[in-house]
Amino acid sequence: MENGSKRWGFRANKSLGSSSSITVRGVLNLLVDSLNKEDTREVVPLAHGDPSAFPCFRTTPVADEAVVDAVRSAKYNHYSPTVGLLPARRSVADYLNRDLPYKLSPDDVFLTLGCTQAIEITLTVLAQPGANILLPKPGFPYYEARAAHSHLEVRHFDLIPENGWEVDLDAVEALADENTVAMVIINPGNPCGSVYSYQHLQKIAETAKKLGIMVIADEVYGHLTFGNTPFVPMGVFGSIVPVLTLGSISKRWIVPGWRIGWLVTSDPHGILQESGVGSLSLFPFLRVYELALFHYVGIEWLCDHGSKPFVVESIKGCLNISSDPVTFIQGAIPQIIDSTTEDFFVKINNILREAADICYKKIQDIPCITLPHKPEGSMFVMVKLNLSSLEGIDDDMDFCHKLAKEESVMLLPGTAVGMKNSLRITFAIEPSVLEIGLERLKAFYERHAKIQ
Amino acid sequence: MENGSKRWGFRANKSLGSSSSITVRGVLNLLVDSLNKEDTREVVPLAHGDPSAFPCFRTTPVADEAVVDAVRSAKYNHYSPTVGLLPARRSVADYLNRDLPYKLSPDDVFLTLGCTQAIEITLTVLAQPGANILLPKPGFPYYEARAAHSHLEVRHFDLIPENGWEVDLDAVEALADENTVAMVIINPGNPCGSVYSYQHLQKIAETAKKLGIMVIADEVYGHLTFGNTPFVPMGVFGSIVPVLTLGSISKRWIVPGWRIGWLVTSDPHGILQESGVGSLSLFPFLRVYELALFHYVGIEWLCDHGSKPFVVESIKGCLNISSDPVTFIQGAIPQIIDSTTEDFFVKINNILREAADICYKKIQDIPCITLPHKPEGSMFVMVKLNLSSLEGIDDDMDFCHKLAKEESVMLLPGTAVGMKNSLRITFAIEPSVLEIGLERLKAFYERHAKIQ
Ligand SMILES: Cc1ncc(COP(=O)(O)O)c(C=O)c1O
Ligand SMILES: Cc1ncc(COP(=O)(O)O)c(C=O)c1O
Repeated sequence: MENGSKRWGFRANKSLGSSSSITVRGVLNLLVDSLNKEDTREVVPLAHGDPSAFPCFRTTPVADEAVVDAVRSAKYNHYSPTVGLLPARRSVADYLNRDLPYKLSPDDVFLTLGCTQAIEITLTVLAQPGANILLPKPGFPYYEARAAHSHLEVRHFDLIPENGWEVDLDAVEALADENTVAMVIINPGNPCGSVYSYQHLQKIAETAKKLGIMVIADEVYGHLTFGNTPFVPMGVFGSIVPVLTLGSISKRWIVPGWRIGWLVTSDPHGILQESGVGSLSLFPFLRVYELALFHYVGIEWLCDHGSKPFVVESIKGCLNISSDPVTFIQGAIPQIIDSTTEDFFVKINNILREAADICYKKIQDIPCITLPHKPEGSMFVMVKLNLSSLEGIDDDMDFCHKLAKEESVMLLPGTAVGMKNSLRITFAIEPSVLEIGLERLKAFYERHAKIQ
Repeated sequence: MENGSKRWGFRANKSLGSSSSITVRGVLNLLVDSLNKEDTREVVPLAHGDPSAFPCFRTTPVADEAVVDAVRSAKYNHYSPTVGLLPARRSVADYLNRDLPYKLSPDDVFLTLGCTQAIEITLTVLAQPGANILLPKPGFPYYEARAAHSHLEVRHFDLIPENGWEVDLDAVEALADENTVAMVIINPGNPCGSVYSYQHLQKIAETAKKLGIMVIADEVYGHLTFGNTPFVPMGVFGSIVPVLTLGSISKRWIVPGWRIGWLVTSDPHGILQESGVGSLSLFPFLRVYELALFHYVGIEWLCDHGSKPFVVESIKGCLNISSDPVTFIQGAIPQIIDSTTEDFFVKINNILREAADICYKKIQDIPCITLPHKPEGSMFVMVKLNLSSLEGIDDDMDFCHKLAKEESVMLLPGTAVGMKNSLRITFAIEPSVLEIGLERLKAFYERHAKIQ
């Protein structure tokens, strides 16, 4: 208190104070403050991945009624088991099995509070002193935020715009070392709208195997595809390398507020369950762990846990001290998954296709942004911002702040997803509103264009 | 693989592997394995605090219909704001204001995934290198598990059975030092069924003020009282010392699977919000923090955040990287809180009173256990296990395992809540089932009684 100009209260965990600025949510909160309250036009939200408020993206009544039935049954007011209700786990396994060459069992499925908690659990489980993880750039900054929180070192590999935002596998090889535990891919891609081919995914699996690391496949946008490339789950390559598949009903069913997702071990050889001598010779990366084991884990713990599955055991331990998804929504999952008809999914993908096309065409008319690759999936596209064509705009953050202020259009600065002087545009909104937003973006450009 | 007798897989965060055994959930999972599948009698669950499966404890239809309305409205499918929906926060503030001498604002309320996540956030926020926290013994082991996970040192003070399980305030004073950040009280008490008087709570507040620590008041069993002592929220003393109030609808509305709770700053002087020179002299503990600040937080962070509220800012930062409660359940909160009528609460408390009485009376007939204090609140009672009156029972764990196996009755060993050779008995079950369970407990005693 000697220092009268500073004011403070209780000290608190310092790693938390700043995390708000590195998540998409944090940046959006800042942008909202830039909006001009005197502008009477509707705000056009092109920054976030939540189209649920638009009537055309309303979820299927099948899902609503499944929840209503579950609540009214009074069978699901109780606490959930740690790993989730068995019928819901079975239902998710069956859902994923439709696209896999082997069969997941309910035991491979852990229910989580959306894909968000699946990421949290995964990174917490992998965070060992000295370990590092490979993340895509651009990417989804929640990974960086959680890794920082768990003191897990992050190394970034590039996604290559000219190759449809494919993973730069040479970079992956160059970055990995004996302390690398995993690489993350997001497919269909946020923020790029990319969809990876079977061949590219296979190459990723082979690279990961060679490096002795597992693949974490964030498939929260799974099946939201509308281009030429079909969605192939990474789990298809689970016999090449162990895959942790993360997903949820948030995006495909357009119910992000329902908080149901999954963390799945797509691992037909059971490497993550229990790995014996046989598999060790198949999977060279295990040697690294074995050597590091005594150092990191300590002999005492090894004796206790030596015969138990490491990753799976650790996931359960982590779930055991975490909150569970709402029990009655778990209770509704079998009905949601089994009874949603194909026409709902087709309708949503058709709207997304239409919106992506509008986005693609309109962007051609706005010289300050260029689109390296037409989106084929998810809800987003990344565009490059050509600052040299603009007057008085410092960078992508400045662009987004001024755009919010002058045109009531929200866009996400590329900086928020790891790529400075780019912009992430969400096209998952009502197409007519999207057109209005892009018109305003054009008007903004025209007002700020550098006079040649 | 040179060591053929050991088998392992990926290494994973070692602190997680063992956490399963120190939560109530972990111990219960072990006990379930002891049940004899050949016993055709119904299992009597006296170990956990979840009566929702019993028809007499079914939640009010008001709550069900509030959720049904919210789901069908399609207004709440979207992601939740970080801190929760404003109408729900306001509603929780108003609910708590009924019992406070000052007014909480919605800004004081953060919605969480049950009281569980409120604990998680609180301990994460307070975990600074070197810090310690004071926890009650016996207590709720989730605190210990989360503190261990966040590397927050734990020091235990006793609850005194002969004084109605009041806090041993001398022990609190002896344990606290300049690195102590807070003390936790659970009132109404788990595992003891205690309800603290106004006078005792005031003494707790004064002790905490003297020590310069805040009080974390776990009031998840708030208003579940049926003895002579009325429930007084700790927040009543918020002008003596800053209080973090943790609660939920899990227990009072008997919907633990719905995962809605709150973390509330009961802090009319705004110490946790922002503390200036004036309040510093009022609150000596802030000096400690100030001195420690440069060391722990670093000058750079101080410059960024110097004028911002520490604890509150940190809570928001933590929520920002955590999962949110389901949006439509938040949407239902105002209707749940406003429309639940007093007779529902009265009915539940009457059943609990009846059950607690049965428990009290039946225990008198079972010589191997003694009850130091008749429960007046919550759902539990702690009894002392007199091993000397038994033959061939090693300890409380052994007692519970054998009881589960021989009588299909689940009881929680005191060890799980920090008190060896005690037992925690849940009386929050259908009274007729409770009688059956206690009869079996008596039969178990008679079979294992030491022959004098
Ligand atoms: C790549 C990615 N992963 C995970 C999530 C979180 O998904 P959920 O809403 O299921 O928690 C998102 C949400 O936007 C996302 O874009
Ligand atoms: C003392 C105490 N705090 C917190 C909790 C967790 O409450 P919730 O179900 O609201 O997460 C419990 C649950 O049993 C409890 O006994």
